[in-house]
Amino acid sequence: MGTTHNRQWRLANRPTGEPTADDFELTVDPIPEPGPKEVLVRTDYLSVDPYMRGRMRESDSYADPWPVGEPMRGRAVGTVVESNHGTFEAGDTVFGNLYWAEYAVVDGTELEPVDTGIAPNSTALHVLGMPGRTAYVGTVDVGRIEPGDTVVVSAAAGAVGSVAGQIARIAGCRVVGITGRDEKADWLTDDLGFDAAINYRTADHLSAAVADACPRGVDCYFENVGGEVSDAVMDRLVDHSRVAVCGKIALYNAEAGDDRLRGPRRLHQRTRTRVEGFIVSDHADRFDHINARLRRWVEDDRLRYRETVTDGIETASDAFLGLFEGTNVGKQLVRIDGE
Amino acid sequence: MGTTHNRQWRLANRPTGEPTADDFELTVDPIPEPGPKEVLVRTDYLSVDPYMRGRMRESDSYADPWPVGEPMRGRAVGTVVESNHGTFEAGDTVFGNLYWAEYAVVDGTELEPVDTGIAPNSTALHVLGMPGRTAYVGTVDVGRIEPGDTVVVSAAAGAVGSVAGQIARIAGCRVVGITGRDEKADWLTDDLGFDAAINYRTADHLSAAVADACPRGVDCYFENVGGEVSDAVMDRLVDHSRVAVCGKIALYNAEAGDDRLRGPRRLHQRTRTRVEGFIVSDHADRFDHINARLRRWVEDDRLRYRETVTDGIETASDAFLGLFEGTNVGKQLVRIDGE
Repeated sequence: MGTTHNRQWRLANRPTGEPTADDFELTVDPIPEPGPKEVLVRTDYLSVDPYMRGRMRESDSYADPWPVGEPMRGRAVGTVVESNHGTFEAGDTVFGNLYWAEYAVVDGTELEPVDTGIAPNSTALHVLGMPGRTAYVGTVDVGRIEPGDTVVVSAAAGAVGSVAGQIARIAGCRVVGITGRDEKADWLTDDLGFDAAINYRTADHLSAAVADACPRGVDCYFENVGGEVSDAVMDRLVDHSRVAVCGKIALYNAEAGDDRLRGPRRLHQRTRTRVEGFIVSDHADRFDHINARLRRWVEDDRLRYRETVTDGIETASDAFLGLFEGTNVGKQLVRIDGE
Repeated sequence: MGTTHNRQWRLANRPTGEPTADDFELTVDPIPEPGPKEVLVRTDYLSVDPYMRGRMRESDSYADPWPVGEPMRGRAVGTVVESNHGTFEAGDTVFGNLYWAEYAVVDGTELEPVDTGIAPNSTALHVLGMPGRTAYVGTVDVGRIEPGDTVVVSAAAGAVGSVAGQIARIAGCRVVGITGRDEKADWLTDDLGFDAAINYRTADHLSAAVADACPRGVDCYFENVGGEVSDAVMDRLVDHSRVAVCGKIALYNAEAGDDRLRGPRRLHQRTRTRVEGFIVSDHADRFDHINARLRRWVEDDRLRYRETVTDGIETASDAFLGLFEGTNVGKQLVRIDGE
């Protein structure tokens, strides 16, 4: 195996407010040995995701909080090094909920084979993985998009938002993306076929910019951010509109009492708006169906993606922190070179 | 007809903030003459409703604003005095969208016969009328109540809330009402079969009171008020909960910039809550079905009601203003004696 060392990240302490590098600790441990039915996997790509901020809290997320001092979990694509599970053998490419680590031992039942055939294996962590399915559920199942709808997506150049907007485009909607950098706005309109993109950092008056981009108002809002960007879109919701609440990255670092957690009271009785939170794992019965669609659209080049990749496990915490600055275009990944 | 005078209320000016008596003007006009196909109706009972506050604004409601200086509209039950429409004859009891007035002339096609057979005709303005249907749509169609749910209703002793809570009780739910007077709370629990009632004006800590009354959390919230009462309930929503937004009387008098219009940002992604505004008239295809249910339950004494009645058209503006103080128990009506 070339080395006996396994570098991995542990949660050093629970952050208050914005997390910093001090909240993470990179430790060097022996590479673990797989027991019966277990598999040793070398990480190729680690996914860092905004929802992980919730797991750093005591109890503020839909998932159990991460214990302080313990290695942190993360979805990853890796290569089997040693397998005590009949389904896998050394050299297989697998997907699993592994660790922020170079190596991981997990039960073989927790792994899935990866062979997309049509795209790099890393896409199992985004367009052909959970972010892609999240985008589909949020637009189709929760947002109930219809042809002719105007659909606004926030964090539109992110892993989920970029797919959500493209699905809405395929579905015959007018699609407007909100993002925080001109480079990203250009990608949305020039490459992904969004009808318009708004840079919320440079727009003079965001609510007016949304109104300009949505002359018939907003039928469906795919909510990834919360906060003032959200306010500007909510101002423009029309009768019978829907808001699919996928995330609220602008609020994840706010502690109780933070001004960011207060805003306009939105009840939307007049417009009969439906605002609905969702978690993709509730929709597992739809995954086979959704996966087939996503694969077909990627294969036909109707669904495009980008990756922002940092190199080496030592970059994982910076890659994660960058999500809150919007440094990523498309999916943020950490690549770990085998040797 | 005994008199040739018709006293009626006109909107004197558009109120800013809390409306006052000065915003209404009682005028005396000749009793109007019915033209072809028209009917002259003497008002027996006029309904005053919170939604009317919206019609006093330039454009903040789902209905057209009332013109300043013109007579104000209101649902009423009355007696036909003179009819030029084949469907009605003098002496018939009818329901219609009439005026805050002793007499009204309307097209016969806008009237419906009233003969409940099982309850006073005034119930066509509440338990067997629009408020009753609103309660049904909000609990069953929008709130999707299930047996075993804990359902919280605000403005629970009002015309809509009191029916909503009883429907939830019939549907096998635990029902908690929030109201502003002990007398009303007692009515809810002792007469209407609510499992618990909270007086929000006297509760030490409203959020804790809701938690005490809802030990398994809140599955469905029937929202009539908005504001801080709403906040306390929203704190207790469980996974896959629903909020049916029927009204927000606590916010109707707030102008832009008013502190009451700001509050906790609620997106409910974690709990997958669905928050949905509704307007009963969108559900007209369900009215025959719903009316039959309401009548049966009233007949079987499973659905009870109370009326708070003021006497004389001159009391209409006070009756309306009282809605915002919560002076009514059950449905607020204005009774107009024929002679």
